[in-house]
Amino acid sequence: MSATSVDFVAVDLADVARVARAALLRAGCDEANAAATTDVIVRAERDGCASHGLFRLDGYLAALRSGKANGRAAPVARQIAPGVLRIEAQCGFAPLAMQTAREALAPLARMQGLAAAAIVDALHFSALWADIEALVDEGLGALCCTAYLPVVAPTGAIKPFFGTNPLAFGFPGDEGFIFDFATAATARGEIQIAARDGLLAPEGAGLDAQGRPTRDPAEILGGAQSPFGGHKGSALALMIELLAGVLIGQPTSVEAAREDNGDGGPPRGGLLLLAFDPARFGDAAGWRAHASAYFAQLRALPGIRLPGDRRRAERARISVEGARLPIALWRAALAAAGET
Amino acid sequence: MSATSVDFVAVDLADVARVARAALLRAGCDEANAAATTDVIVRAERDGCASHGLFRLDGYLAALRSGKANGRAAPVARQIAPGVLRIEAQCGFAPLAMQTAREALAPLARMQGLAAAAIVDALHFSALWADIEALVDEGLGALCCTAYLPVVAPTGAIKPFFGTNPLAFGFPGDEGFIFDFATAATARGEIQIAARDGLLAPEGAGLDAQGRPTRDPAEILGGAQSPFGGHKGSALALMIELLAGVLIGQPTSVEAAREDNGDGGPPRGGLLLLAFDPARFGDAAGWRAHASAYFAQLRALPGIRLPGDRRRAERARISVEGARLPIALWRAALAAAGET
Repeated sequence: MSATSVDFVAVDLADVARVARAALLRAGCDEANAAATTDVIVRAERDGCASHGLFRLDGYLAALRSGKANGRAAPVARQIAPGVLRIEAQCGFAPLAMQTAREALAPLARMQGLAAAAIVDALHFSALWADIEALVDEGLGALCCTAYLPVVAPTGAIKPFFGTNPLAFGFPGDEGFIFDFATAATARGEIQIAARDGLLAPEGAGLDAQGRPTRDPAEILGGAQSPFGGHKGSALALMIELLAGVLIGQPTSVEAAREDNGDGGPPRGGLLLLAFDPARFGDAAGWRAHASAYFAQLRALPGIRLPGDRRRAERARISVEGARLPIALWRAALAAAGET
Repeated sequence: MSATSVDFVAVDLADVARVARAALLRAGCDEANAAATTDVIVRAERDGCASHGLFRLDGYLAALRSGKANGRAAPVARQIAPGVLRIEAQCGFAPLAMQTAREALAPLARMQGLAAAAIVDALHFSALWADIEALVDEGLGALCCTAYLPVVAPTGAIKPFFGTNPLAFGFPGDEGFIFDFATAATARGEIQIAARDGLLAPEGAGLDAQGRPTRDPAEILGGAQSPFGGHKGSALALMIELLAGVLIGQPTSVEAAREDNGDGGPPRGGLLLLAFDPARFGDAAGWRAHASAYFAQLRALPGIRLPGDRRRAERARISVEGARLPIALWRAALAAAGET
């Protein structure tokens, strides 16, 4: 494998938004779906999260063109138990369903202390932190997970079985702490981008088709990704298959692959979203100051870097400089939007 | 460091139970506290989990003798929100408080779909899987976490700040799946046992006092343990500090260390326990068969080994052969029980 040269262009976030929205509308989304999906694409580009930004547009469009995605879904939230909502995403992209889920879940979490939303029949292709950020901003804690297509070999095995299965957690307060990581050692988008750009995948990212460790992204894409952290990451990936699949009557990763049409877009599947209100756990008066004092001690440790720090720094830079996009990607997006 | 020889003796689990209970009673526990604490010690020995078995007795007894632990605690459960319980453990050992929590939480989870128990002012020294096993056995899912004393350096830092911060998850069904792992790369008990037995700690277990990676368990105990899986494990450890500490008004690991008397027993702290009922998430008729079919596919993968498999195998063996205890440990337990 040799490195290939990729040329980049700086694009203003407003232009990213205009082009993404136009492309989604042209491919069959209605206004609400185009706006919600554009929002998560722009949030990703805003925070330097290239693997979940405009890079995903092609997959969204493919799923609309193949008929797998319903561009006119009108998600509905139903309460199915005192602490549980079920959101029917109607095979639309997840962003609009997640917006529906957050709007119904936030007041329920405040009332119950803790509540869950099972989002079903959604096509999820975005970053989970973007899905929970609004809850954290309004003072709630959140946890969210989803399965994907089988790309990760469970520890000990060499065949893909788990999805990259991301987990996001947020805790409110002055710090507004959020993390979001794939239980795969490396996000799939990062491996795809490494393959595109002629780079090596990180050490430990995956196995070739014979189960041998490799850093060649093309071999990993044809073999299996590895979970992060050995058997512990593998256990978390399995937990997510159970929570976002079995628990809520949705396909696990292997089941999603069986029914997927292979158009390159996201498969149909579920998400589990929990929200909790720190004011209802017995320390309503103290938790916020406690959180601030705790983070102040943590940040005083030499060498420390917390989840979200990179995104915050990128956000400040990109708001000035614009998103850094490969020229070919930007041209394809412009074409999809009908601007060339 | 050189390996030292340790002689072992096989002890029937009934004898482990008798001796643990007698020692706890002699040191000031009442019957209920001695029985609940003995139960988790015996469960650990039954499943070959030496680091949480009779090995912990000395710490329990130290905490009783120093007056830190209340051997006569009578935990009380209060509902503080429709979906949240608060269990006052009254500075007793966690096992009796966890029993109180499970008994109140199980019906609430069935009614709400999802519910939480904040266990506060508990001295936790056992294995979390033993704390959630009874919930899973009666058909509920569970998630539990707790912080500990600062022993783990966050990724990038070299100073201990997080506890070993274990996370346990269970999902019911014919498989009865449970995992439980420290977010530290290695359980602290394992490092202590390696130091005792003159063995090396696993690769990546921790750092010496200068922040250099080492496998010498004594150096790690005087330096810092590492989180598992790099920044992702570190993020999970931080999540647990927030959930089992800040959220419920309990000390985080660094705060627990400041108030702890250093008697070698567990510090005062909190646990967060969630329980959920798969029958209330929209697939009441299907989830159990779905889980079974999913685990059958997973178990068909060559090379696979699932969390809990080792424990199950050990349980079968130890029920016949007895627990394998270092002779010095068993003699000390007998002495504490007044049997020598």
